Amino acid sequence: MENVVRINRDKREEPNALDRLTALVKNDMARVNEVIIARMQSPVALIPQLAGHLIASGGKRLRPMLTLATAALCGYDGDRHIPLAACIEFLHSATLLHDDVVDESRLRRGNETANVLWGNQASVLVGDFLFSRAFQVMTDDGSLDVLRLLSGTSAVLAEGEVLQLTTSNDVDTSEDSYLQVISAKTAVLFAAACQLGAIVANRPAAEEEALESFGRNLGIAFQLADDALDYSAKQATLGKSVGDDFREGKITLPVILAYRRSDAEERTFWRRTLEQVDQQDGDLEHALALMTKYRALPDTIARARHYGAMAKDALRLFAPSPTRDALTGIVDFSVDRAF
Amino acid sequence: MENVVRINRDKREEPNALDRLTALVKNDMARVNEVIIARMQSPVALIPQLAGHLIASGGKRLRPMLTLATAALCGYDGDRHIPLAACIEFLHSATLLHDDVVDESRLRRGNETANVLWGNQASVLVGDFLFSRAFQVMTDDGSLDVLRLLSGTSAVLAEGEVLQLTTSNDVDTSEDSYLQVISAKTAVLFAAACQLGAIVANRPAAEEEALESFGRNLGIAFQLADDALDYSAKQATLGKSVGDDFREGKITLPVILAYRRSDAEERTFWRRTLEQVDQQDGDLEHALALMTKYRALPDTIARARHYGAMAKDALRLFAPSPTRDALTGIVDFSVDRAF
Repeated sequence: MENVVRINRDKREEPNALDRLTALVKNDMARVNEVIIARMQSPVALIPQLAGHLIASGGKRLRPMLTLATAALCGYDGDRHIPLAACIEFLHSATLLHDDVVDESRLRRGNETANVLWGNQASVLVGDFLFSRAFQVMTDDGSLDVLRLLSGTSAVLAEGEVLQLTTSNDVDTSEDSYLQVISAKTAVLFAAACQLGAIVANRPAAEEEALESFGRNLGIAFQLADDALDYSAKQATLGKSVGDDFREGKITLPVILAYRRSDAEERTFWRRTLEQVDQQDGDLEHALALMTKYRALPDTIARARHYGAMAKDALRLFAPSPTRDALTGIVDFSVDRAF
Repeated sequence: MENVVRINRDKREEPNALDRLTALVKNDMARVNEVIIARMQSPVALIPQLAGHLIASGGKRLRPMLTLATAALCGYDGDRHIPLAACIEFLHSATLLHDDVVDESRLRRGNETANVLWGNQASVLVGDFLFSRAFQVMTDDGSLDVLRLLSGTSAVLAEGEVLQLTTSNDVDTSEDSYLQVISAKTAVLFAAACQLGAIVANRPAAEEEALESFGRNLGIAFQLADDALDYSAKQATLGKSVGDDFREGKITLPVILAYRRSDAEERTFWRRTLEQVDQQDGDLEHALALMTKYRALPDTIARARHYGAMAKDALRLFAPSPTRDALTGIVDFSVDRAF
């Protein structure tokens, strides 16, 4: 099912890195899924219905997998990583529910979004429920270090989303501002998911920092690849449509690069389509042509590779192992899926 | 400014109970306000702007005041009640921001709502931020008992909101279901706010339970009075318009009582106006006439008094004191403001 990466380099292995990571944490992941199902229950039937629609919709569960894999990398042999990985997925799911309302998205992972099926109101409130549930599960874990990390993470996530909102439809957004947005709205949760592995295993600060750095840089690489993917023909094979970001007037790195490199007339085009979101037939094709002209997609991927390289180097603090290899592979997987 | 209660009974004192409670916790409340201002800051400027608009908009701050007063009632002389009262206000504010989006409200406390001024998207995301911030402040407090109470409370709050959504526009909603909704969406936060007083003071379980019961029953009485108030001429003096609930097709106790007591033709009217929300000029006046005919408002207030009586009796576990008197007075204040 996850036959997403074409084998186009001799250095790429079979099975792909996501499959290898999935196999390594398979037993733990089955337990995480049990916790997720058990803890999303509520006497209010709409809650498990709506949450279940999102959670069972075939996401990769990459974030909780990172918690499980980093715990394994740290030699952890307890049980705390199981509910905490579920927490990470709850926080992520709550964010997705609110995101889809904010972005008025209609499709996610090839399915209609919860806001289309049950309305914005239910999506906002069930998001709130999942968020609360995440904090209940953390409280059951009982570690103030974990609570501090994850309450701080969720505050930064919200800040990132608000920041994105205030820079939206502004083609003059700088690459730096954009990096700030994705560091806050995406990378911080990847970082926390990975840091948890060292925290539960009670590893020294250097290892916790290395995993935080791995997760943060992986998260940035992942988001940049996602942004490129939205303009790539590859997108269609993932059950998504090409150009969703364009239609919403989202300012992502491919747009920022193309706009900066455009001449005056082309800039008028970008402002009309993305700032005023005044679009007509053929505009997406013209945008794609400009991106090709200015190499916006390969250069976005080159930026992603830069963060990916930092992520991989951060992991080298740990001794080689199949888990370390799989985590390293996930970096390439995240970047390469855009092509 | 809070000259809200007409002195229409010889048993009513001057100054009113809210003023007396406000005076008793004045110094502590000034410190709570400092914490609120300090902890709603963010490098993302829209966050303190939007949150500040709501938080500074002249709410009574009844819920954090309850935490301060119950801590005083329990003889607490530490500092933990200050940030925890701020937490309660953050949780309440986050709920209000999301509520106003869900209800498409345009006015709150006589001001335009944040969703009107900054849009639904910003309201959802700043709500998420305040929610996260509440958990950061709780984590700083460091008590797992408090975290357990408040994460559970916020899960039940969300459940209550979803439950309300699923019963909305259904005039056949029973009084029992309705009580379930308001217990979850309103009373549980009042209960937690009061319980905190006993928790920080490390008082025996009986006192914690008494304060939980006081808060819960006060919360139900408060919400029932609020529901009556929406149909009462008194509403206009509070900067709100009469009949907001009616226009939204909200099913509250006055409607439930009036509908149950209506004849077949009158029920057709309720179904058209509240289930199909198909309303025309004169409908609100007709609804008010039916409520008068069936005594829906005085009977809603009678129900509120019943819960109020339980709240007052719960307090009698504590020795008489000006704080106990003021808390007792708040019950009457909450109910009487509807007339």
